[in-house]
Amino acid sequence: MSHYHPLTLDEAVALARSIPNHFSEQAELLSEEIGDGNLNLVFRITDAKTRKGIIIKQALPYAKVVGESWPLSLDRARIEREALQIQYALVPDLVPAVFNFDNDLAVTVMEDLSDHTIMRKGLIDGHHYPLFAEHIGKFIAHTLFYTSDLGMNQQQKKEQLARFINPDLCKISEDLIFEDPYRDSPNNNIPESIRTDAEALWNDKELKLEIALLRESFLTHTEALLHGDLHTGSIFVTASSTKVIDPEFAYYGPMGFDIGAVIGNLLLNYAAQPGWSATANKLNSQREFLLQTILNVWEHFESNFIALWNRDIVDITATTPGYQDIYIQKILRDTIGFAGAKMIRRIVGLSHVADVDTIEDEYVRIHAQRTALRIGTSLVKLGRKATHIQEIITIAKAAVLEEVRQ
Amino acid sequence: MSHYHPLTLDEAVALARSIPNHFSEQAELLSEEIGDGNLNLVFRITDAKTRKGIIIKQALPYAKVVGESWPLSLDRARIEREALQIQYALVPDLVPAVFNFDNDLAVTVMEDLSDHTIMRKGLIDGHHYPLFAEHIGKFIAHTLFYTSDLGMNQQQKKEQLARFINPDLCKISEDLIFEDPYRDSPNNNIPESIRTDAEALWNDKELKLEIALLRESFLTHTEALLHGDLHTGSIFVTASSTKVIDPEFAYYGPMGFDIGAVIGNLLLNYAAQPGWSATANKLNSQREFLLQTILNVWEHFESNFIALWNRDIVDITATTPGYQDIYIQKILRDTIGFAGAKMIRRIVGLSHVADVDTIEDEYVRIHAQRTALRIGTSLVKLGRKATHIQEIITIAKAAVLEEVRQ
Repeated sequence: MSHYHPLTLDEAVALARSIPNHFSEQAELLSEEIGDGNLNLVFRITDAKTRKGIIIKQALPYAKVVGESWPLSLDRARIEREALQIQYALVPDLVPAVFNFDNDLAVTVMEDLSDHTIMRKGLIDGHHYPLFAEHIGKFIAHTLFYTSDLGMNQQQKKEQLARFINPDLCKISEDLIFEDPYRDSPNNNIPESIRTDAEALWNDKELKLEIALLRESFLTHTEALLHGDLHTGSIFVTASSTKVIDPEFAYYGPMGFDIGAVIGNLLLNYAAQPGWSATANKLNSQREFLLQTILNVWEHFESNFIALWNRDIVDITATTPGYQDIYIQKILRDTIGFAGAKMIRRIVGLSHVADVDTIEDEYVRIHAQRTALRIGTSLVKLGRKATHIQEIITIAKAAVLEEVRQ
Repeated sequence: MSHYHPLTLDEAVALARSIPNHFSEQAELLSEEIGDGNLNLVFRITDAKTRKGIIIKQALPYAKVVGESWPLSLDRARIEREALQIQYALVPDLVPAVFNFDNDLAVTVMEDLSDHTIMRKGLIDGHHYPLFAEHIGKFIAHTLFYTSDLGMNQQQKKEQLARFINPDLCKISEDLIFEDPYRDSPNNNIPESIRTDAEALWNDKELKLEIALLRESFLTHTEALLHGDLHTGSIFVTASSTKVIDPEFAYYGPMGFDIGAVIGNLLLNYAAQPGWSATANKLNSQREFLLQTILNVWEHFESNFIALWNRDIVDITATTPGYQDIYIQKILRDTIGFAGAKMIRRIVGLSHVADVDTIEDEYVRIHAQRTALRIGTSLVKLGRKATHIQEIITIAKAAVLEEVRQ
């Protein structure tokens, strides 16, 4: 780590210029730092004429979260970059290309996706992404299958697992998702208006038991190389393209954690929608789109995963009749449980989502928070008993109806 | 690995002499190689006068199994030695002390246990070990609890897990326990007299499905640092002492795998006993002892484990009411499943046990093999549904009765 230092804008330009066959020698390169400065520096270097760009991401040795500083290993830049490369090799259409890296500087040089929008922002702005479910279902199925004991040599998987030991970032997930929201922790960020709802979580024994079991799965089930933080802020979209970025939380964990992250974040946007058309007794179109997307995400995941299994299974034992059904049911149950846990932590935990927090009308915002907590709690409790993805839809609709009634 | 070479007897003596405060300078040291030469060299260096000894264990870069040579990483000597040291720190009365080591030479210098007997041999000779259950229950509870997310910092556990990635030796377990016995593999060693019994395993869909699930648990559930090969040949005993040796298969896996190994091997000896007293309609005393020992092993494990949990739990979330009961039930279920799998592989798989194979009378031997297969199959099928350790006893007794009837 001896020559680590945060890059200057000029150093970033020089690094960009050194990438072969990207910018012409005469190009006038513009440089800007576009990160939020909390965890990483992110430079965008752009050719002033062609508008062609490149991204340089550099890890900082700490996390700034609500003013606090939290030391973080720079090795996470290597983990993120290696995860990107593994994912790119599997689904190159859905992951930015890595052009170069420097482990000592904790730097990755990668494809610029300026023509895409962060999906969370797009959803908040009311956009629909009809190809998203197909894309993300494919991403999840391929990246999970081919990094698991099902789809790769089991000895190589163990070596790969050791390269993705990611204690610092796993610690963030362990605390912020599975621990703090379920007790009166100073790390929580609880809006005063829903304080009693938060306290109800702390007294819900059934909920806390299920959370303990989900946490155990997160800590001990090394099924596949996860993205580890697959919310809608880690996904770039256009009408025709989806790109998954920022796998710095990558580690070997339970497959349902990634799928649950996608679904939980779609449901947070769902909870944040203003409305149920009481006269028509139906959901508004954004909510309809979100629920349909959730079904489609699961179905694309499942059909892709089964197709890969039937074609490329490595593990003879996994071809035992009946095993695939049990395996997929387990992923479904984990998915539903983790989706619920991800929703709850975004309402009462340290880090919230803009979908809910940017709602200006306090009355609407409180309703959104309660709806999210209601859906999240129901999903966590359903998890181990679930048999079909449709149960999520039933819960989501019921939660909205109940909110409307109050 | 540059200066690795198999030690000579003289080099072993010199190494022994270099251990501080062990042998006097004037001691006349006798040296013998007592290993079976299949995986390791084992030197015993003894002071001719005092009879005080020391053991030097050196890994060989291959395994010789039924004439075949199989390359094996020398790093397993480091893994074995580090596992011994971790276990010794936790239960020093139950593990040989490590005096020195050399990773390049793949050598560990440790306490001589010549006054102890290998437990498998002791059982074959008809001895009872009344303190064994208490000792091994304590060993398992302490070594599993304090290396798991329950009993140690969860970030340090991840780093420790990475040091115990043990692909070569896990591969042996994966193939020989969970794969080969369930198909017509050239690695199997099937006595011709029970060929039809072996073929029945290959056609037993329920059994194979449960084995696939046990294999998945072995591959992906990183609960605790296991011994990994805890059969009665890895345990030294006297009437008053128990020492667990040879953890070269150590890795992070499901807790039930270690407990199941102990119980499965006790049941193999049980199956190998000649008799049921038909007139008295009761088990012979060795069988009574073995069944009682199995109950006691579980009960000592469970009471130790719960006491450690209630005293030294690290994970706040694990204190959630109801969680401990679910956790222990899961260990019980895994234990029963793995015990069964361990029995089956020792009858039809590559590597057998002397308890059964040294029975001279072919009729008695075949009955022992069938009894072991019957118990093993029943345990594997019971596993996921089990609720009490007593169910093992019921199955073991029923299998003997059925054998007697035939």
